[in-house]
Amino acid sequence: MVIMYDGYSYDGWQRQKTTKNTIQGNIEEAINKVVGEEVKIIASGRTDAKVHAKGQVANFRTNTDLSVEKIKKLLNEKLPESIGIIAIEEVEDNFHSRFNAVGKKYQYTINNSEVENVFRRNYMYRFPEKINVSMMELAAKKLVGKHDFRSFTTDKNTKKSSIREIYSIAITKNNSEITVTIEGNGFMYNMVRIIVGTLIEIGQGRRTVESIDNIFEEKRRGAAGFTAPPQGLMLLSVRY
Amino acid sequence: MVIMYDGYSYDGWQRQKTTKNTIQGNIEEAINKVVGEEVKIIASGRTDAKVHAKGQVANFRTNTDLSVEKIKKLLNEKLPESIGIIAIEEVEDNFHSRFNAVGKKYQYTINNSEVENVFRRNYMYRFPEKINVSMMELAAKKLVGKHDFRSFTTDKNTKKSSIREIYSIAITKNNSEITVTIEGNGFMYNMVRIIVGTLIEIGQGRRTVESIDNIFEEKRRGAAGFTAPPQGLMLLSVRY
Repeated sequence: MVIMYDGYSYDGWQRQKTTKNTIQGNIEEAINKVVGEEVKIIASGRTDAKVHAKGQVANFRTNTDLSVEKIKKLLNEKLPESIGIIAIEEVEDNFHSRFNAVGKKYQYTINNSEVENVFRRNYMYRFPEKINVSMMELAAKKLVGKHDFRSFTTDKNTKKSSIREIYSIAITKNNSEITVTIEGNGFMYNMVRIIVGTLIEIGQGRRTVESIDNIFEEKRRGAAGFTAPPQGLMLLSVRY
Repeated sequence: MVIMYDGYSYDGWQRQKTTKNTIQGNIEEAINKVVGEEVKIIASGRTDAKVHAKGQVANFRTNTDLSVEKIKKLLNEKLPESIGIIAIEEVEDNFHSRFNAVGKKYQYTINNSEVENVFRRNYMYRFPEKINVSMMELAAKKLVGKHDFRSFTTDKNTKKSSIREIYSIAITKNNSEITVTIEGNGFMYNMVRIIVGTLIEIGQGRRTVESIDNIFEEKRRGAAGFTAPPQGLMLLSVRY
């Protein structure tokens, strides 16, 4: 399944015992109703509370005789308006949405204005202070490539590798809207949001472009910038 | 003031005794706090519950010494996130937002898809059935110009003139998104929504392009098409 959702009012992707208000929980419940089986879905990765997706990918197994087109139609009827199934296709039995993913693309949107964008306020981080986008771009160049991103995560599990490769970072400014589009082979917990927070601090002149080198060397969360808030983040697509 | 608002969760523009949840009520309350006077604001026109605006215009009188820039800043701090003051300027004493308006532009957005647009669902009317946009365009040509639009309003006051001039109607289709942009010297109650409903019925083939002539002749609401729902409607701008 390729899935889009407005994550603003959800407690994140992952099913939890303490809340019914998760994306996974809603989709699993809808699938159960449609195919008449208790299914568990596997996503390309979790997204946090308030984080959105235009192209999340998730898979599940079922014995149903319904066609994928029929399942898609029925799911979209049953799901809340804030979750939409864009496409469903049958895959090989050993397909795994997380393990088979080879690339992910995220977009972060900053509203660099004193006035709230009333229509898109839940999909942007409003940051009214002056930002120098050229400085952000120079810093972004230093982040691209294969690095140890240990400083760019709040995940404290130091046993797992924190080496990731960022393929590209594109920054555009359209009127007061700054978007950071970032593609890589994988991202650790909060990694995109910490990268964006660090780039904002550099754009403000509170950090230098060269400070990126030190952040990589220090290998601790405290060395990097703040964690940009979740509502500006969108999972655009997953590559297989 | 030039004002934008996400009208989806409001009971419309006009202040009412039975609800606090109006755009006018919220703006008047904010102004009162900022300038310390009880003011009444005059808009270019009312918008219904769920209808949005990117360029509503309203004026008020005040004796405050605060600059317009300062008033704008303070208002945006006090207003809910769903209402934004884009600009404020001082005007001549006899300026009247409604009487001085010489043109208005509205946009109506249809999501012609089986899948909900999860991010813009409150700003579109989802209508999944097949629509022939060329037929809508032919019918729109017949609506442009000076006509008696009596059939295109639910306003039952027949003493007021129902002659209006439509300057232009532009219809575009971008993937599954159909937008109808309509500009005229003034619009009666529900007029844009009834025009859009009628164009949709023509696009579906349920009415002919020529039926527009009959609708004009019949001069009764029942002759025209259905009233398209409010959330797809946006007041784009007002001309003076």
